[in-house]
Amino acid sequence: MTRTVIESQTKTVTIGFDEPFCVIGERINPTGRKKLAAELEAGDFSTVEKDALEQVACGAMVLDINAGVVYNSNPNPNETEPPLMTKMIQLVQGLTDTPLCIDSSVPAALEAGLAAANGRPLLNSVTGEEDRLELVLPLVKKYNVPVVAISNDDTGISEDPDVRFAVAKKIVERAADFGIPAHDIVVDPLVMPVGAMATAGQQVFALVRRLRDELGVNTTCGASNISFGLPNRHGINAAFLPMAIGAGMTSAIMNPVRQVEMEAIKAANMLMNHDPNGGAWIEFSKVLEATKEGATFADAAKASMAAGGGRGGRRGGRRRG
Amino acid sequence: MTRTVIESQTKTVTIGFDEPFCVIGERINPTGRKKLAAELEAGDFSTVEKDALEQVACGAMVLDINAGVVYNSNPNPNETEPPLMTKMIQLVQGLTDTPLCIDSSVPAALEAGLAAANGRPLLNSVTGEEDRLELVLPLVKKYNVPVVAISNDDTGISEDPDVRFAVAKKIVERAADFGIPAHDIVVDPLVMPVGAMATAGQQVFALVRRLRDELGVNTTCGASNISFGLPNRHGINAAFLPMAIGAGMTSAIMNPVRQVEMEAIKAANMLMNHDPNGGAWIEFSKVLEATKEGATFADAAKASMAAGGGRGGRRGGRRRG
Repeated sequence: MTRTVIESQTKTVTIGFDEPFCVIGERINPTGRKKLAAELEAGDFSTVEKDALEQVACGAMVLDINAGVVYNSNPNPNETEPPLMTKMIQLVQGLTDTPLCIDSSVPAALEAGLAAANGRPLLNSVTGEEDRLELVLPLVKKYNVPVVAISNDDTGISEDPDVRFAVAKKIVERAADFGIPAHDIVVDPLVMPVGAMATAGQQVFALVRRLRDELGVNTTCGASNISFGLPNRHGINAAFLPMAIGAGMTSAIMNPVRQVEMEAIKAANMLMNHDPNGGAWIEFSKVLEATKEGATFADAAKASMAAGGGRGGRRGGRRRG
Repeated sequence: MTRTVIESQTKTVTIGFDEPFCVIGERINPTGRKKLAAELEAGDFSTVEKDALEQVACGAMVLDINAGVVYNSNPNPNETEPPLMTKMIQLVQGLTDTPLCIDSSVPAALEAGLAAANGRPLLNSVTGEEDRLELVLPLVKKYNVPVVAISNDDTGISEDPDVRFAVAKKIVERAADFGIPAHDIVVDPLVMPVGAMATAGQQVFALVRRLRDELGVNTTCGASNISFGLPNRHGINAAFLPMAIGAGMTSAIMNPVRQVEMEAIKAANMLMNHDPNGGAWIEFSKVLEATKEGATFADAAKASMAAGGGRGGRRGGRRRG
């Protein structure tokens, strides 16, 4: 049984076929968030703090940390990203014991993150591009961490799911050459917008089944891509996630502060028999009740967490570092 | 490719693996609706009229008609159900050209419904019980209609999905003895409450795949059973339906006046590539927008239908009778 183990100093999260769906919170990411990028350049980390705590309260089991800024004062990410990654990781680790996902396209930032993170973070990401394979896989091996493998290569992102499967297979095989086991690779089969490509949903469901059956790997995705360009995106996301979970997807990088999507995931967990006595669903329903009385989802989730409800106790084993 | 064809005098609905999910509206049913039963006994059919029009506006593609009353004046359903079934069918056929599903446990009411209905209604239902097989299958053959086959038999409802599959297989085989093809059998694998049986969701998903792959039949279910006894039932239903659709389920008997469930189905249709240009989703999103401005879902759907939006034009071929 495939188990991808991610750890902070004190907490273990397992991505696996028999585990509740692993929600990786995507919010700590200045890419496309100009206001946050400006704050970070000015040394203001209040949004990072808020995003960390809100995401954990709302159900994030892992926090993605992306330091992809382009400063006005210095446009070179090879210089700016590594120290910012270190700073953000130190900050978030001081706030929460939720395991981290180190997210960058700058290898030096990945390595800075690996040096700063406690425990066993998830590395995000390697692709099938030759230079990425040669730069990232040695880091994965050196730090003995799991890695997200995105199924594009030097030819770009193929619209043909068979090609994307072949790229994933190549990454798994190349990792094996480095002594990295398949259970430490979490494949992102790449989700296309269903509004632009009508087969996008079915492609993902079929790919997830193949990746699981043929390569034995866990899977993840940027879930909200599926609804890009369409009206009422949350409604599409909230149907896509249960369908992907039913097909065997085991994690997603997503915004956990969105109630509709989190509700869909909690329900899907119960329907997959990953919430056997319904305890997590019943706890979550209390948060939903509070939102009906006017609270925002984030506030209701934070209040529930402060009252001792919600997630902590349900997340696999704990250990003291 | 399995296609179950249901017709009114002027309209055709096809249940099939390559068709949008078929929503069978369950509301016209006095069982467990004491107020409606009393109205019907008093000759008041206003709720039936309202339920018919609302369900069609909200997206019902077939209307289930159940005359299961127990009158104070006459507790014998063998006497009361057949004339009431005739009356209800005549009434609903005068209001809408949506195809019908004739629903009764009283064989004489089934036959009365078959005599009264135009076109090719769906018959609901036969079970694996010997007396039901012997009574209902000749009606199915005589009137050349499709039938819902519920996978319980003289031993009751088994908790073992293999037994429920075997019952479905027996019904399909017995039907074949009568010359009834598998594509005219829509199997209900029976949905258990996931709150009482933690494997209930997975049982259904696995059964639907087997029924499709091994027997080549379409499937249906009483979708809301899955959430019985749990809080926030709509949230569970709205995750269950896309997961069941992803597993291959092709119809459900359900309440189409529930926005959350219908939104999940419309999104799942798009994700299954059964709404290739997203036209149905975009139309549905306009109804959702209207509900955000304060309209009820039923009123917003009726307004959209009156304005020419929504369903009619998207439902397969039409013919004039």
